[in-house]
Amino acid sequence: MTISAVLPEREQQRLADRYKAVREQTVGLCAPLEVEDYVVSTMPDVSPTKWHLAHTSWFFETFVLADFDRDYVSPNPRYAFLFNSYYVQAGERHCRAQRGLVTRPSVSEVLAYRRHVDDAMQRLCDRIAGDAEHPAWGVIELGINHEQQHQELLLTDIKHVFWMNPLRPAYRSPLPGSRPVGDVDWLAFGAGVRQIGHKTESFAFDNEGPSHRVFTEAFRVASRLVTNGEYLAFMEDGGYRRPELWLSNGWATVREHGWTAPIYWEKADGAWSEFTLAGNGALDLASPVCHVSYYEADAYARWAGARLPTEAEWETAAADQPVCGTFVESHRFHPAGARGTGHGGMGHGIAAPSPIPHAPCPNGDGHGQWYGDAWQWTQSAYVAYPDFQPSAGAVGEYNGKWMCDQWVLRGASCATPQSHARLTYRNFFPSDARWQFTGIRLASGA
Amino acid sequence: MTISAVLPEREQQRLADRYKAVREQTVGLCAPLEVEDYVVSTMPDVSPTKWHLAHTSWFFETFVLADFDRDYVSPNPRYAFLFNSYYVQAGERHCRAQRGLVTRPSVSEVLAYRRHVDDAMQRLCDRIAGDAEHPAWGVIELGINHEQQHQELLLTDIKHVFWMNPLRPAYRSPLPGSRPVGDVDWLAFGAGVRQIGHKTESFAFDNEGPSHRVFTEAFRVASRLVTNGEYLAFMEDGGYRRPELWLSNGWATVREHGWTAPIYWEKADGAWSEFTLAGNGALDLASPVCHVSYYEADAYARWAGARLPTEAEWETAAADQPVCGTFVESHRFHPAGARGTGHGGMGHGIAAPSPIPHAPCPNGDGHGQWYGDAWQWTQSAYVAYPDFQPSAGAVGEYNGKWMCDQWVLRGASCATPQSHARLTYRNFFPSDARWQFTGIRLASGA
Amino acid sequence: MTISAVLPEREQQRLADRYKAVREQTVGLCAPLEVEDYVVSTMPDVSPTKWHLAHTSWFFETFVLADFDRDYVSPNPRYAFLFNSYYVQAGERHCRAQRGLVTRPSVSEVLAYRRHVDDAMQRLCDRIAGDAEHPAWGVIELGINHEQQHQELLLTDIKHVFWMNPLRPAYRSPLPGSRPVGDVDWLAFGAGVRQIGHKTESFAFDNEGPSHRVFTEAFRVASRLVTNGEYLAFMEDGGYRRPELWLSNGWATVREHGWTAPIYWEKADGAWSEFTLAGNGALDLASPVCHVSYYEADAYARWAGARLPTEAEWETAAADQPVCGTFVESHRFHPAGARGTGHGGMGHGIAAPSPIPHAPCPNGDGHGQWYGDAWQWTQSAYVAYPDFQPSAGAVGEYNGKWMCDQWVLRGASCATPQSHARLTYRNFFPSDARWQFTGIRLASGA
Amino acid sequence: MTISAVLPEREQQRLADRYKAVREQTVGLCAPLEVEDYVVSTMPDVSPTKWHLAHTSWFFETFVLADFDRDYVSPNPRYAFLFNSYYVQAGERHCRAQRGLVTRPSVSEVLAYRRHVDDAMQRLCDRIAGDAEHPAWGVIELGINHEQQHQELLLTDIKHVFWMNPLRPAYRSPLPGSRPVGDVDWLAFGAGVRQIGHKTESFAFDNEGPSHRVFTEAFRVASRLVTNGEYLAFMEDGGYRRPELWLSNGWATVREHGWTAPIYWEKADGAWSEFTLAGNGALDLASPVCHVSYYEADAYARWAGARLPTEAEWETAAADQPVCGTFVESHRFHPAGARGTGHGGMGHGIAAPSPIPHAPCPNGDGHGQWYGDAWQWTQSAYVAYPDFQPSAGAVGEYNGKWMCDQWVLRGASCATPQSHARLTYRNFFPSDARWQFTGIRLASGA
Repeated sequence: MTISAVLPEREQQRLADRYKAVREQTVGLCAPLEVEDYVVSTMPDVSPTKWHLAHTSWFFETFVLADFDRDYVSPNPRYAFLFNSYYVQAGERHCRAQRGLVTRPSVSEVLAYRRHVDDAMQRLCDRIAGDAEHPAWGVIELGINHEQQHQELLLTDIKHVFWMNPLRPAYRSPLPGSRPVGDVDWLAFGAGVRQIGHKTESFAFDNEGPSHRVFTEAFRVASRLVTNGEYLAFMEDGGYRRPELWLSNGWATVREHGWTAPIYWEKADGAWSEFTLAGNGALDLASPVCHVSYYEADAYARWAGARLPTEAEWETAAADQPVCGTFVESHRFHPAGARGTGHGGMGHGIAAPSPIPHAPCPNGDGHGQWYGDAWQWTQSAYVAYPDFQPSAGAVGEYNGKWMCDQWVLRGASCATPQSHARLTYRNFFPSDARWQFTGIRLASGA
Repeated sequence: MTISAVLPEREQQRLADRYKAVREQTVGLCAPLEVEDYVVSTMPDVSPTKWHLAHTSWFFETFVLADFDRDYVSPNPRYAFLFNSYYVQAGERHCRAQRGLVTRPSVSEVLAYRRHVDDAMQRLCDRIAGDAEHPAWGVIELGINHEQQHQELLLTDIKHVFWMNPLRPAYRSPLPGSRPVGDVDWLAFGAGVRQIGHKTESFAFDNEGPSHRVFTEAFRVASRLVTNGEYLAFMEDGGYRRPELWLSNGWATVREHGWTAPIYWEKADGAWSEFTLAGNGALDLASPVCHVSYYEADAYARWAGARLPTEAEWETAAADQPVCGTFVESHRFHPAGARGTGHGGMGHGIAAPSPIPHAPCPNGDGHGQWYGDAWQWTQSAYVAYPDFQPSAGAVGEYNGKWMCDQWVLRGASCATPQSHARLTYRNFFPSDARWQFTGIRLASGA
Repeated sequence: MTISAVLPEREQQRLADRYKAVREQTVGLCAPLEVEDYVVSTMPDVSPTKWHLAHTSWFFETFVLADFDRDYVSPNPRYAFLFNSYYVQAGERHCRAQRGLVTRPSVSEVLAYRRHVDDAMQRLCDRIAGDAEHPAWGVIELGINHEQQHQELLLTDIKHVFWMNPLRPAYRSPLPGSRPVGDVDWLAFGAGVRQIGHKTESFAFDNEGPSHRVFTEAFRVASRLVTNGEYLAFMEDGGYRRPELWLSNGWATVREHGWTAPIYWEKADGAWSEFTLAGNGALDLASPVCHVSYYEADAYARWAGARLPTEAEWETAAADQPVCGTFVESHRFHPAGARGTGHGGMGHGIAAPSPIPHAPCPNGDGHGQWYGDAWQWTQSAYVAYPDFQPSAGAVGEYNGKWMCDQWVLRGASCATPQSHARLTYRNFFPSDARWQFTGIRLASGA
Repeated sequence: MTISAVLPEREQQRLADRYKAVREQTVGLCAPLEVEDYVVSTMPDVSPTKWHLAHTSWFFETFVLADFDRDYVSPNPRYAFLFNSYYVQAGERHCRAQRGLVTRPSVSEVLAYRRHVDDAMQRLCDRIAGDAEHPAWGVIELGINHEQQHQELLLTDIKHVFWMNPLRPAYRSPLPGSRPVGDVDWLAFGAGVRQIGHKTESFAFDNEGPSHRVFTEAFRVASRLVTNGEYLAFMEDGGYRRPELWLSNGWATVREHGWTAPIYWEKADGAWSEFTLAGNGALDLASPVCHVSYYEADAYARWAGARLPTEAEWETAAADQPVCGTFVESHRFHPAGARGTGHGGMGHGIAAPSPIPHAPCPNGDGHGQWYGDAWQWTQSAYVAYPDFQPSAGAVGEYNGKWMCDQWVLRGASCATPQSHARLTYRNFFPSDARWQFTGIRLASGA
């Protein structure tokens, strides 16, 4: 994380404003919830909404206020224990498995905690305004990006909570269906040395750098994501019953858990439905397939006679406009107002109660899209870039210590805040994760 | 369960009134809770408060209204799935392990469900008033007793929920400490054939009968329960470190879970505290030891050179007034107003927000007490009495199908509704259960 | 255990002879085995044959030689660690779960260990001959009985080892089939006080006493065990698919493990076979059903409109010859030579390579039999008799510390050494145990 | 696997001879074992010796004889079920977890099975001699390499079996200790595009190709492996107690299993010992550290201010003689006769009962060594090379389906047959594997 850069005055104000806006957006995402919904964790990966609200505040308290505001007093010293996620260097912490068992502090107490932190942060920003080299600015920017990650997780997790409830409550009202998509174009790239990774002055997580050179043999990448309809053809061709299509661990997982479809799909009376944040609805065949694990993405690719891209290929294709000029817009998200108007988009996202810059949908101009629908599995294991150096101190635990048994995902999903998406972003999840908004883009050799 | 007796008219009105009072008491017990507290389950044995409120209503809906009110319509047909506990013959049911993951229906919806059921029950009682032989009366009485069991469970469970929270919230304000207790008297009984089990016309669960004869060799029973102070002496004598004192399974449990004290005890800075519904407080040495498993009760008894009583011995001693005349009052609970005035009582119970007939305390006249503080482990395995016949239909699953790998507990605890306690009552829990209000009375041969 | 009685000189010699005979029988039971068969443990309950051979020797080494032969030196001091089963007071011991992982000492080393112990025991017996009060005699008798228990376990365990092998090897050649059995007689007993438990001077385990009085209401007991054919009728009536027939834990077990028949039964091409020590063979409908758990015995009894006997009823019926005169012979086993000639006997037992007094079979005179085919589940939980006192020291762990979550089984099985069976014998296993030779005798109220 | 190449006649004879030699070597490795040692599996990763002997024979039976010898008859058709490891396309197979429970076929039957297969293989080789294009040749070569892999596994597994035995038996007699090693040299390599992967006509597994280009930034690699002494310094500096040194999963593993040292190390009376195939012995400080997991290798590297090499860096360094000329000999193993004479070698290997080309040791000329002591963890996840194509049919399951959650290891260990080692070899194990002969070579940026 580039958390110590000099920050021009104009940027300081922008950052203070952005802090306020992002913090409000997080609370705004909770508008459709009942108090009861904030409390539970339906599986080890899922954190309670209440915990997300508190943990993101703890982050500012611990890494900003504790260091830069000596008058700051926490409303409850036990919060540091309850809301530390995994920062070993930041002290003892509550067992993750028990997050969903803690009914107090109540939701209203957590919201008061947020306001307490926000007030202190406002005072700090006022105090250091004009000090372009103040070290707090970098950590504030990190905290904002951290909060945006939890905005996505909050939606991902509440979707699972609602899904686990036999009453199948809905978080929002349905979106319009998507328009049919055309055939995939295969975008071709020659062999060569490329530069990948983050290199500008703007914010990025530490794991996105250093920028460095890689060699890629010639390759091709699909112009759009695999659709529900295409994935259904794989299923109907026995995809979940043919071991030769699967990694060994993948096949064992399919057998152990009885997987026969993506996580939120159900078949009743011969018809497939998909659970989204709008509740159960008919499966939209033109929408990108979502909530598939790496195992499923890999098996699908094998069935389709293709493979998943490496992250170098993905970044090359996403960045190389001369070759794939049609997605010249693809790195910029459309405003929320455009939501739901596109083709081949996904209904997984949110119709937020207040206009927040979420990006559930593709552009509406007939072009392909590159990201903003579903995170895209790559066949690159999540390891360090050459000469990677984690940030100093506890925030160095943010990314580096997870570099093991996970895959890189690129792009962004319909639940990612638009301003949080980035060409060099490296998301990561293990092979069997399905509760995230994860989809499939195919690649192949030349 | 004697659920088909003829019911005199005066008793009919009394039962309808009692229905109303008990239902209100259940809701009254929730007054100190926040909405968030109703939702979670902190271990497999613990059900959410919200579930207790709904399940007891489902019981009346399923076993009374569905059979005797053909106009009754459930507010949500999925509730039958969500709130059936274990009655296989009453249809499919939600997985117990997931009770704490279901945020909807909300607390207010569950309370509306209760009112919906109560209204229908009121109409039914009005309609069948005067029909002494109507089969509903028996099931209503069963449902009232069932609800009272869940009142105790609700308290037991919320205590565990609060205990699992590092903030250690309190359910009520503290009670006065107890007065010192005197030495144990050993009440002696000769060998002989006794009649035990339920035989009157009044209500009892099916497992309390049939009344039958047993032979007991001569025995002695302690006049009061083991105190915290006495139990502490066992601990300080290495009780938890000496395998020869324990059953083999008990020793394995001690090792596996690292038990060194009853569940709610903690040692800090050299002093023992005990968590009660009033939060953490200094250990009250004169109070009966509570929240011990069968394993601990059995090991303590062996250490003390005694044993636990059989249930026949227990019932004989409790009933045999010529021999143990000092506790002539012991089967009748004192009104709630007398709570906390006694000696050797326990602070585990509740200072209920409304005056309900709970029985947390002993009498105040210097005599012993027999029950009302803690359930008393016996060394009788929970099996059927001779010629036991479970009730017909799904309610026959109430007791009979649990007759395996559990022990009988006798008496009643400070969390038991006073009107629910009974000489012949057979409670039952497995050897390692500690979250219930369970204590120790010693016995020995003559 | 009555391990300190005065022993007349004639009995001393008899005991020394018996030691020798029983020790040889144990080795004789291994004759059909390959070296590889001695090594493995196919589930937590099963010990390797090699371990049985060594553990029984360790028992004499630890409880006899270590105390009474100060010149005795163990061939390897680590054997005390490897071959202690569960005697906490006899020192640290090897983890039970790893018994099947230890390839050394080899079989031949274990046999040498046996001879080493036997030689020392022979010298000890010679030395103390004539000393009727020598305390060793009592422990020797205990050790002989302990060895006989392991003879049965050795057979029980090797049967499971062979069953787990897809090649299904056989331990012995097949026995002749059994003759058809007649209808069950129901033997009636009046209510009354009876004396049960061990009271003579002869050997018994400590848990068989003290002899004491019990009251039994009037009852009836079946004259013979339930047959395979009768059990098949239960299965064909949906026995394994009807939850109302099962204890709650039993039904959970049926579901979890997919039980549809007793453990060694298999259905292929529409026909049932049963695996015995002679390998797979057609199911013998007239033979007593065997290898059923308590759960299955209990469910069968409920289906049959009966119940299991209590142990007091069982012992009363077995002992009460005026009432059940037809089985006047039933407490005496027939010589091995008569094996296999009877009716309704079981093919589970052994045709031992040398003539040892095993009792696989019923008498051949048309009378009922009472025991010697299968251990008989009772509905009595395994708890202490009134005033039970375990033996002093480590041998006191033999029985007492297991009195929890197990059921008493009475009688003896076809794998029990004939001289080991006894009217007052209390065997015990948990509810789900099926690998033992366990069967069903029905009872009911009067 | 290049299993269909045309094979010159001289090579045909060489391959037939090699088949014979390798098959004999496998049996030769078992010479120090007792029959009991062949049977057990001490953890899920460990297969019984008996199984290795049988499975390698099954491989030839299934993939050579079944396809190319229509007269071949297996000695037991159930062997195909028992000895298929994981080839889903080759039919149903025995559960891996139960391999150690199967006592039959006996060791002598398995050896007879081997001879049966060898005889048939000899006849086949005679028959197809001269047919350079016969497809069997390629599969035979694959089978020989497969057998060599199992030679190493057999040793790895028997080491664990002996370690799990409290008696700690030894497989062989001790080797001489190693000479002190000097400081590490850091070999420097400039940035550039390199060609890696297998490209010659000689045998390689399918996962070693295709040969392709990679770009590596400038880097340095250590001239020798980390020693026991160096690793001990890490331990004494709190290596196992400092979470900041570990991957998150690694730290969790350390905590869960209580790791405080490599698997075979023990501390007694203040001194460290190491268990090798020669039994327990004093820790040899100059010997390369062995039996460390990826987690430990990674934590050590972080502690040492370095990192692990990528596999491209490793192969570049190993192959690039102008830069690292001192290990010009490093790809050729020394004859067994030279075993134990070198410096810094390891005592883990074997003094084989017959002279087989195992390579336990470094060269003796004062130069560095590159491989032959311990497999070397790289920080490259095990994924497919660009355009990787698994072999057709069931043998395609050999490597490709494992490309998930494992790391590439390069080099060879002291237990690897010398003729099996290769510059491009890609071994792979998961992060927590420690029972393999795995060590650490450090790398860093330029």
